[in-house]
Amino acid sequence: MRVDGRKPLQLRPIHMETNYLIHPEGSVLISVGNTKVICTASIEDRVPPFMRGEGKGWITAEYSMLPRATETRNIRESSKGKVSGRTMEIQRLIGRALRAVVDLEALGERTVWIDCDVIQADGGTRTASITGAFVAMTLALNGLVEKKALTKFPIIDYLAATSVGILEDGQTVLDLNYAEDSTAAVDMNVVMTGSGEFVELQGTGEEATFSYDQLQGLLNAAQEGLMELFEKQKEALGDEIVKKIELSRNNT
Amino acid sequence: MRVDGRKPLQLRPIHMETNYLIHPEGSVLISVGNTKVICTASIEDRVPPFMRGEGKGWITAEYSMLPRATETRNIRESSKGKVSGRTMEIQRLIGRALRAVVDLEALGERTVWIDCDVIQADGGTRTASITGAFVAMTLALNGLVEKKALTKFPIIDYLAATSVGILEDGQTVLDLNYAEDSTAAVDMNVVMTGSGEFVELQGTGEEATFSYDQLQGLLNAAQEGLMELFEKQKEALGDEIVKKIELSRNNT
Amino acid sequence: MRVDGRKPLQLRPIHMETNYLIHPEGSVLISVGNTKVICTASIEDRVPPFMRGEGKGWITAEYSMLPRATETRNIRESSKGKVSGRTMEIQRLIGRALRAVVDLEALGERTVWIDCDVIQADGGTRTASITGAFVAMTLALNGLVEKKALTKFPIIDYLAATSVGILEDGQTVLDLNYAEDSTAAVDMNVVMTGSGEFVELQGTGEEATFSYDQLQGLLNAAQEGLMELFEKQKEALGDEIVKKIELSRNNT
Amino acid sequence: MRVDGRKPLQLRPIHMETNYLIHPEGSVLISVGNTKVICTASIEDRVPPFMRGEGKGWITAEYSMLPRATETRNIRESSKGKVSGRTMEIQRLIGRALRAVVDLEALGERTVWIDCDVIQADGGTRTASITGAFVAMTLALNGLVEKKALTKFPIIDYLAATSVGILEDGQTVLDLNYAEDSTAAVDMNVVMTGSGEFVELQGTGEEATFSYDQLQGLLNAAQEGLMELFEKQKEALGDEIVKKIELSRNNT
Amino acid sequence: MRVDGRKPLQLRPIHMETNYLIHPEGSVLISVGNTKVICTASIEDRVPPFMRGEGKGWITAEYSMLPRATETRNIRESSKGKVSGRTMEIQRLIGRALRAVVDLEALGERTVWIDCDVIQADGGTRTASITGAFVAMTLALNGLVEKKALTKFPIIDYLAATSVGILEDGQTVLDLNYAEDSTAAVDMNVVMTGSGEFVELQGTGEEATFSYDQLQGLLNAAQEGLMELFEKQKEALGDEIVKKIELSRNNT
Amino acid sequence: MRVDGRKPLQLRPIHMETNYLIHPEGSVLISVGNTKVICTASIEDRVPPFMRGEGKGWITAEYSMLPRATETRNIRESSKGKVSGRTMEIQRLIGRALRAVVDLEALGERTVWIDCDVIQADGGTRTASITGAFVAMTLALNGLVEKKALTKFPIIDYLAATSVGILEDGQTVLDLNYAEDSTAAVDMNVVMTGSGEFVELQGTGEEATFSYDQLQGLLNAAQEGLMELFEKQKEALGDEIVKKIELSRNNT
Repeated sequence: MRVDGRKPLQLRPIHMETNYLIHPEGSVLISVGNTKVICTASIEDRVPPFMRGEGKGWITAEYSMLPRATETRNIRESSKGKVSGRTMEIQRLIGRALRAVVDLEALGERTVWIDCDVIQADGGTRTASITGAFVAMTLALNGLVEKKALTKFPIIDYLAATSVGILEDGQTVLDLNYAEDSTAAVDMNVVMTGSGEFVELQGTGEEATFSYDQLQGLLNAAQEGLMELFEKQKEALGDEIVKKIELSRNNT
Repeated sequence: MRVDGRKPLQLRPIHMETNYLIHPEGSVLISVGNTKVICTASIEDRVPPFMRGEGKGWITAEYSMLPRATETRNIRESSKGKVSGRTMEIQRLIGRALRAVVDLEALGERTVWIDCDVIQADGGTRTASITGAFVAMTLALNGLVEKKALTKFPIIDYLAATSVGILEDGQTVLDLNYAEDSTAAVDMNVVMTGSGEFVELQGTGEEATFSYDQLQGLLNAAQEGLMELFEKQKEALGDEIVKKIELSRNNT
Repeated sequence: MRVDGRKPLQLRPIHMETNYLIHPEGSVLISVGNTKVICTASIEDRVPPFMRGEGKGWITAEYSMLPRATETRNIRESSKGKVSGRTMEIQRLIGRALRAVVDLEALGERTVWIDCDVIQADGGTRTASITGAFVAMTLALNGLVEKKALTKFPIIDYLAATSVGILEDGQTVLDLNYAEDSTAAVDMNVVMTGSGEFVELQGTGEEATFSYDQLQGLLNAAQEGLMELFEKQKEALGDEIVKKIELSRNNT
Repeated sequence: MRVDGRKPLQLRPIHMETNYLIHPEGSVLISVGNTKVICTASIEDRVPPFMRGEGKGWITAEYSMLPRATETRNIRESSKGKVSGRTMEIQRLIGRALRAVVDLEALGERTVWIDCDVIQADGGTRTASITGAFVAMTLALNGLVEKKALTKFPIIDYLAATSVGILEDGQTVLDLNYAEDSTAAVDMNVVMTGSGEFVELQGTGEEATFSYDQLQGLLNAAQEGLMELFEKQKEALGDEIVKKIELSRNNT
Repeated sequence: MRVDGRKPLQLRPIHMETNYLIHPEGSVLISVGNTKVICTASIEDRVPPFMRGEGKGWITAEYSMLPRATETRNIRESSKGKVSGRTMEIQRLIGRALRAVVDLEALGERTVWIDCDVIQADGGTRTASITGAFVAMTLALNGLVEKKALTKFPIIDYLAATSVGILEDGQTVLDLNYAEDSTAAVDMNVVMTGSGEFVELQGTGEEATFSYDQLQGLLNAAQEGLMELFEKQKEALGDEIVKKIELSRNNT
Repeated sequence: MRVDGRKPLQLRPIHMETNYLIHPEGSVLISVGNTKVICTASIEDRVPPFMRGEGKGWITAEYSMLPRATETRNIRESSKGKVSGRTMEIQRLIGRALRAVVDLEALGERTVWIDCDVIQADGGTRTASITGAFVAMTLALNGLVEKKALTKFPIIDYLAATSVGILEDGQTVLDLNYAEDSTAAVDMNVVMTGSGEFVELQGTGEEATFSYDQLQGLLNAAQEGLMELFEKQKEALGDEIVKKIELSRNNT
């Protein structure tokens, strides 16, 4: 039994409130247990300078936490005048992951800006951000298709992320909360497509290491959780969009 | 009739969800029409260097908008590496206003950090922030009283804010939404205590001016709206805290 | 009697030395008692990007203090690498106020850069800056008219500012010096046109409040002082320019 | 055959010049093919504020490239005034990896500053940095032991890193050079201890994905290269230090 | 004959208005032709961290230009968020030069902050700053002596600076104005003590060079101008202080 | 006898390894005793905005030290987020000096970026940088001539730099190492062309001064050392390039 009563390979309760905000082209408020993230997708009709003229789109992400998303107040990065290394790592990861399931040529010379703002944190904010950002992005791009601004549905597969880890007592667990994450010996984030292919794998032993066999256990745990997350995404997106993704996946 | 069907001196619907987040000592999600702000209050057990040893507390505020709180996406201030003049003006205003209704000596050498994060904007974000921040701060300070960390309830009066303005057609209106605010000839923010005293008055004619008589009309409109806001705050805070504030007001 | 021997509604001695510097298109050294500000106006033959193609001009202001304008030395904002919230508030106020008395269409696609550099401070630096900046700007724009770069005189009214306040002892006073300002219960800055219309009204109770009746007393005091300031501006500008402003005011 | 004539699972030539500089406590110039990095280790007799009083040491790393380490000149991060996300990711990785093989309690309240400065880049600069930094750090800490400043040899195992990837044609390769890295479908960095335990695993598909089976192939390739790197480290460190590490490893 | 009618080795008219401002411990408004600089000296009763406990004082300088000191408006360094290389060079030079004529031990653990703010520029702003700063500093330190805060008069000699140069036509000239400076082949700044010793010599050929013989001509021209500047400083400081400096010089 | 056994007017051993790196158009690793600097020259086919359309080239330099080039570790300027005044002074000096011996018109609208990265410091890093940068730049520009991108060889003379100084005991010495430099009474950097003309002369007495006679002694010492440095540069560049420089010098 884990600190919050879950079984080792049990996810926390997931909830996604789509179209949570009125202004963005796509938005979702995702909750993974007590972790809550507002994910929005904004469409801009041009790409960054280094990509102009290639006929392809771009997806980029920004991540932030409200100062009191955490147990003690964090200083705002705008007050510090610079973005931390942790924030940069996370936003690069989110953007890279999302680009793996989008047909950037079908998107045309557009940028999708993803914003993930953590309003409450209890571990797993980066994986919740990816899972939610996929939904927000899909809603925004589906809007472009419905407005006939795109001729081809550009999402080619589902994308979700979760964490797995090895606790101090050696137990392999799925979807670590903050209490678990801060004492775990090994922490691994796994980003996967709906077809079960890896997009990102980041395993870290902080003052610890892990063996080849432990790695296999972690990968299996992650896969189990991810299959459940894909189901939640399908519910949130609705049948019509699910059909479009399936069709797109088969044609790729 | 106004653009959203309201009468000239009618507020938008107000809603406050108290204790919206689990970590902060006080928090509220305030909605004023489509404007939504997460207000939190955090207690720190020391004051800034310039106040040490005076036996008094301090209240300071930070204000920010999510990038997609607005119709077009704003660049994050953390990415720009600096806070805009508008943001600074607003956060100075919020802090100054709240300090007017707190007995800083009763607070002792503590800092109350107020964070107002706009998650959706439709005009009046600074006045909604003040109205919500008062509630979050009161919840946090009441918590200190309940924990016996404070011997005296330090809130000495209610505090709320609203905007009034003169539209292009010369009409005086209460609680401007974004469409009205961006075309108004005159815009005035009024911060008032529950006893009807002014705390801040900021009237601005952007490429326009206003007469002494127009000023009186604006002040009357503001007062009417503020009385309604104080009632909403009382509902949100609940009878027990309302009694403490009344008692504290009578003793000041 | 006040700390410096003045009556409650008496201004400090005012002096303006026009064309104080050789390089700027318009300049003045304004003294209000011991407060001394160099105000310059610079003409640039283009507007900021967000205004291009609209056929209108723009007026923007910057404000700064020499490090030793004050009793104790201030750290330069260039050394700190950022501009303080107070500075931003003041420069936004100066720009906004000046724009209220200029026909921006008559100005054409030009920017007037106003620089207010306080070389000695004794309270009221922002109001002295506005009063002086109006004179510097008028000299610069008159120069454009004389060079036939402008066909219409673009100043449509006088503009001046002063402060009023309520001292600790409850007395309402005009034109506060630093000693008064730093202990006043209420401080209000009033920007007005030569026709007696308000442009800006900023009243603040720092850890204090003010009633409706006190507000009326403050407004009356301000108006009295402003009438005297307009006379000083007329003397500084000279008969020829005064005639142009009167003519322009009657035609608006 | 690969672009530079190597076999798929062949490392580039490795060279390490120990004690390359006169000032640092430990230093090495490591070459991996054309990639050249100066790694230094500096000892500071205190730890960062967040660790004081715990009786443990800390290891932190900084990474940079000379502007002309690359084919086209890069703008210096000092000129840009900020460190890029890529740099932050790499320096966090280096520090975390090294901490996994050091007994931080044996180190006492000291900080080891690792500096990895790439003077010539041809792919794999972060893995060469880790492999070289381990050697520089070991030399510096051995110096402390020789000076009797430490009573226990604090290195508990070897540490090296290499990259593996899947090229566009589907081939799995070891130790990618820049030409390979910039076109690879999948890129994975593996950090391992001399005992064959994983410390870090970072696999990324940029606009691509990889299957469970491909992952196993990548891991095997990495392990083969890492065994060779540990041999090179032993040669560079010399018999005496090798004996100390073996002893330390057996006692852990 | 030069562009402004001067002879080759003739200084521009010099004027110094001492005690120009009310707040600083020492201040002067120096004019060298059309170049005008406000120089102030502020005393702080401690030294920077790197000097604490040595029983010696420190002198440091800051230099800035008002935006419209020049013919076209300069962007403020506070707006740019950083100080230019030119500004840094100048302020390092001013501080270093002044330290050469002060007995830092006699000063005790105090810092003298020198601020040189150019309000009008026409060439030679750095040399005018040094000449004026010496006077402001001397007034401030004499104040400390008069208040008996110092037992020994700490100024050990006069200090002044001027520029010399070689014009495009090969002529050696003294005290270049902006028109001359911007086209000169060689530009040299010379800082000298009242005893005729060099403190700083900075000769620069911008896209030009100069011979050993030309150097001797430049040095002679500088010396002639400097002798005149020392006389102006004596007049500005007055007999009483002049006597103290002479006494101090003889005792060193 | 000096601290390292040299005679007063003896240079330290000089070594230059040309084409030290594979990517830059020109590069050299210069050693002057224990001071080691990597100098590179990069060609960009355009000039900065302020020079466009003039048909002339530009040369600009950047200078930096590795954190552990010195006895105690320096904080990186990229971490501090700003470049120090010392660094700015040095890089402005290097660029200005090199421009004195290049025919910028023959260079055409190109920029030469010089990077001087000190990997080990023992005094004289700025003069070693200039001496090495000249060689790197010459190699890069000769490459342009060989590729027929330039029709005229644009180097018009040799350029080298050294330091001279007066030690505490009054002795005049050449090429100060760090131990000498940090205690010298007077320090002077001299940049000279192969024809014996001065390009830059920067003499500084830190809390000391120097007489006219001492200056002559310093200049003679510098000249002696510089003649030796030109011979080293000729050896490093090789006969073919030496001939081109001689030819170019005779034609100027």
